[in-house]
Amino acid sequence: MNNIQRDDASKYDSKSTLCLTLNLFISRQDIDAMLLLLRRCRRLTAGLSPAQAQRARPAASPAPSWCGVGGGSRSSSGGGEDRQTAQDPRWRPALAGLLVGTGAVLAYGLHHHKAEQPLAPMEPALPVFSQAEVSKHGSLEAGVWVTFRGGVYDITDFVAMHPGGDKILLAAGGALEPFWALYAVHSQDHVLDILSEYKVGELDPEDQARQRAVEPSDPYSGDPQRHPVLRVNSAKPFNGEPPPELLGDSYITPSAIFFKRNHLPVPRVDPASYRLRVEGLPRPLSLSLADLKSRFPKHTVTATLQCAGNRRSEMNAVKQVKGLNWGIAAISNATWSGALLRDVLREGGWGPEAAAAAAAAGRGARHVQFEGLDADASGTTYGASIPLNKALSEEGDVLLAYQMNGEDLPADHGYPLRVVVPGTVGARNVKWLGKVIVSREESSSHWQQNDYKGFSPGTDWDTVDFKSAPAIQELPVQSAITQPADGAVLERDADGEVTVRGYAWSGGGREVVRVDVSLDGGKTWQVARLREGEEQGEEQGEAPPPLPGRAWAWKLWEVVAPLPPGEQQVEIVCKAVDNSYNMQPDSVAPIWNLRGVLSNAWHRVRVTVRED
Amino acid sequence: MNNIQRDDASKYDSKSTLCLTLNLFISRQDIDAMLLLLRRCRRLTAGLSPAQAQRARPAASPAPSWCGVGGGSRSSSGGGEDRQTAQDPRWRPALAGLLVGTGAVLAYGLHHHKAEQPLAPMEPALPVFSQAEVSKHGSLEAGVWVTFRGGVYDITDFVAMHPGGDKILLAAGGALEPFWALYAVHSQDHVLDILSEYKVGELDPEDQARQRAVEPSDPYSGDPQRHPVLRVNSAKPFNGEPPPELLGDSYITPSAIFFKRNHLPVPRVDPASYRLRVEGLPRPLSLSLADLKSRFPKHTVTATLQCAGNRRSEMNAVKQVKGLNWGIAAISNATWSGALLRDVLREGGWGPEAAAAAAAAGRGARHVQFEGLDADASGTTYGASIPLNKALSEEGDVLLAYQMNGEDLPADHGYPLRVVVPGTVGARNVKWLGKVIVSREESSSHWQQNDYKGFSPGTDWDTVDFKSAPAIQELPVQSAITQPADGAVLERDADGEVTVRGYAWSGGGREVVRVDVSLDGGKTWQVARLREGEEQGEEQGEAPPPLPGRAWAWKLWEVVAPLPPGEQQVEIVCKAVDNSYNMQPDSVAPIWNLRGVLSNAWHRVRVTVRED
Repeated sequence: MNNIQRDDASKYDSKSTLCLTLNLFISRQDIDAMLLLLRRCRRLTAGLSPAQAQRARPAASPAPSWCGVGGGSRSSSGGGEDRQTAQDPRWRPALAGLLVGTGAVLAYGLHHHKAEQPLAPMEPALPVFSQAEVSKHGSLEAGVWVTFRGGVYDITDFVAMHPGGDKILLAAGGALEPFWALYAVHSQDHVLDILSEYKVGELDPEDQARQRAVEPSDPYSGDPQRHPVLRVNSAKPFNGEPPPELLGDSYITPSAIFFKRNHLPVPRVDPASYRLRVEGLPRPLSLSLADLKSRFPKHTVTATLQCAGNRRSEMNAVKQVKGLNWGIAAISNATWSGALLRDVLREGGWGPEAAAAAAAAGRGARHVQFEGLDADASGTTYGASIPLNKALSEEGDVLLAYQMNGEDLPADHGYPLRVVVPGTVGARNVKWLGKVIVSREESSSHWQQNDYKGFSPGTDWDTVDFKSAPAIQELPVQSAITQPADGAVLERDADGEVTVRGYAWSGGGREVVRVDVSLDGGKTWQVARLREGEEQGEEQGEAPPPLPGRAWAWKLWEVVAPLPPGEQQVEIVCKAVDNSYNMQPDSVAPIWNLRGVLSNAWHRVRVTVRED
Repeated sequence: MNNIQRDDASKYDSKSTLCLTLNLFISRQDIDAMLLLLRRCRRLTAGLSPAQAQRARPAASPAPSWCGVGGGSRSSSGGGEDRQTAQDPRWRPALAGLLVGTGAVLAYGLHHHKAEQPLAPMEPALPVFSQAEVSKHGSLEAGVWVTFRGGVYDITDFVAMHPGGDKILLAAGGALEPFWALYAVHSQDHVLDILSEYKVGELDPEDQARQRAVEPSDPYSGDPQRHPVLRVNSAKPFNGEPPPELLGDSYITPSAIFFKRNHLPVPRVDPASYRLRVEGLPRPLSLSLADLKSRFPKHTVTATLQCAGNRRSEMNAVKQVKGLNWGIAAISNATWSGALLRDVLREGGWGPEAAAAAAAAGRGARHVQFEGLDADASGTTYGASIPLNKALSEEGDVLLAYQMNGEDLPADHGYPLRVVVPGTVGARNVKWLGKVIVSREESSSHWQQNDYKGFSPGTDWDTVDFKSAPAIQELPVQSAITQPADGAVLERDADGEVTVRGYAWSGGGREVVRVDVSLDGGKTWQVARLREGEEQGEEQGEAPPPLPGRAWAWKLWEVVAPLPPGEQQVEIVCKAVDNSYNMQPDSVAPIWNLRGVLSNAWHRVRVTVRED
């Protein structure tokens, strides 16, 4: 969904395509930008042909679009294609992964406060449409109509400007409520203002009554309670991180404060009827929890998971990016127990012979796809994939985990089963695992294809081609200071020393071998003491030295050093080195990217020193 | 050999220990520094006790030392040990790997020009010693005596100041000539000046005659002819790199200009009698070249090799480091053919059962050691090791290679057999391979233990602990600009564009996925076109896409971009990103290290633009 074709792109400036991009994280800034664009585009309609301008009122399909953009196309070949691609069958499956980002808990919020209030003064001339009539407008060709609280809206022209991308098309021909219920970001007045501009009629009162009868309850009502200490970056879906000072205090992060990054509501899974389906094998499997626990050796791995967006806030400080504004704590470390994915695939008959046979048949498998049981209103589930060789390697340690820190997985971490892919970005560690598929292709999910990827700082939403970058798998070397906090005021006491602590980790099983710390903004450096397993927490014994290439867990580190004499402002900096001797880049701007992922520049903390 | 204990270190400044370090690469600057230190130390002797001062004349052992340093100790536990550690049996094997760096072709050069000329005016009072007497002074405890052209020298006090480290002790009790013959760096007048200060007597004329009878010819006389285009960083041993503009023109580097990095003279190996010994296996092997070619499938890999010291000159520009002053071309790409090491180890009975049995017997193997046939005068051979799992992995592609670019290996590249360890630093790709040993320990060689390792910029030769850092194996992500050259003058022609070309590579099989290029010193960036296999040279077809995790070959890249208008001075910068999204660090100073290895900061080229 990387390139969206345009009818007449040359008329509009580059910003007008900002809203084309598919993005699941919609911020308040997005909404503001959207509003601004909308206003600009509205003004532009004045200069358009009558045929185009009349799109503000119901019109026969196919609908030409305005504001620079036609429809969505999965093709990556750019703007040269004509609109027929929108009818290309390849285009339709693309829609099937779309509208999640569009939803909001707006409906939920509004039910209490603005309930049945109409959105705009009733326009007496507006016609009444039946649901059957609305349903006919379910595509860009036929026009995109939606209903919301009894109103009928033709949003065909808005599709291209939607900050959440053309996921909005999933609602075409139906009600917005179930989708908006997923994302609280829509619960703002100016979103309603925008919608009201597209009103074309009223929904037949009988159909309204039928709709109310099936209106969903809050899809997040089944979410578990969370620890109040978590800093919430998004409530629905829930995304929260622990305070850094707690994070750095414990080698094993307690499950309750382990960072939580959900893309959708937490599904309720009945452990008794649960089955994991494993496909793409000579012998497809359907495994109960009991099967997973009894038929495969239990394997335990201590592994750090990190969100691709950890430390995104530092990129936002350079230039606004899209995504949740994570601090430095979208990373945590736990022990995970379960069956090795490798063992399960072998049980299904995957081995050198099956691989050779598949390759000979032109079905050479290179990936393992994972589907979660968490789904949006359309039934689209979370999904991701990893390279097959990681899954099959004796040293890959990929788990189908049913335990976290020695107990059943908590609901937020994938109960009853999740994948743990050590050394690999959090997004591929699919929770509430429903299906495993050995396949020739990567997952076609939005999150694999069009989201978790890195780009050059020079690439913007105008020029980005998601096909040009690989899906993030292994993450680069990372470290951050958990103590002192940025902005802290330190007393210079008798010994004049400061204790600096933090974490360091690298992807791909590469062990962190050194952390350098500077107390003068990066001019001079000293080597931190790696705290290894010892003193990491009372319950934990000493961590054994990691096997080569299998250093899945972070290192906590510490430096006790004299504060620079006479300085009132001290900038503390850390940078880690892994055993392939990769180092963190010095600064944020040169690694800035439009999605704000892979933020691993030196971490800087500025503190004030108060003299005794 | 990382820490060298001191008798009275506090008297001397930190520079006085610079010369303690073991280092095989002795530059002219080293010699100058040594001379300076020597002078300073000489002055210091004036303030020492008579007992210490008389060390300038023969004295009974044990010899207290001056100038801040006593002897060498292999222990890493620092300066707290007393001198008894010098008698520790662990210390003696350390000596066995030492003196290579000490040698020079001085003898060779001098034989022609200064032949039998005495080094200093004959001092009539100097006694005559027999070789038997000299031989008694073969250790720091007994005093270190050496002979050179008929003179006898007590260099006990010099050992600690030797820029080549205590490798000098290998000559203790014997003649310097065979060692100096290895390193041309000693062929300078001030080296002889220094030596003359330690003269304590004359060697018995009969012993002199015996010595002359066995004096070696130039050990480098068997070295092959090299291509004149190579930039020579060291003639003996030979170290040379191609001009960058040639390097960047050809995806496969022609063998003749492939960078050459020898540590010792090129051995002449008779292919008919050659045998590779493979040890540490249930069934040790002795394999002829014919065995290697006939008993194992021939496997071909395109792999880039890079010296750990590539781009060291940029670190030297920040602060002087030890090592050959490589430019950006100590990296090249070739095809290699041979037997898979994995296949050979399996032929010797290595497999899961052997591994389990070894582990159960407490001999769990984790490394594969390689010994070269290139040796110094003492018989010490070049050696290195890699992790066993790299050697055994189906995806490791480790070769026992007998061909380079489709022909027998050239002499400089290891004829008749070398190891090629794709994705791993050049130093582990042992040439003229004599022996392979599966073992629990890493190679004990100097190059594995005390040389190719990375340290913090804050670590100096005073504080370095070689045991604290892992031997370099996989290298970090790298790129450099091969065109235009630094300092080039470009004409601004009608189109006002500049073509920038370069290479990019990463260790560990991580594929380079993007190269960013800046024409304004790093403020803004554009994405280079990766030239993949196409147009990389007329003989080469398109390179197939690398398998995941097996991207062993570099990518050449190109940008054609407008020169910044109006600018006369343009700074062009490049940085690469690999598929684990590791990036190059911004600047050199924060990754500076005392050995000048791992120099992979952004590459910068400054050009002058001349207006038409």
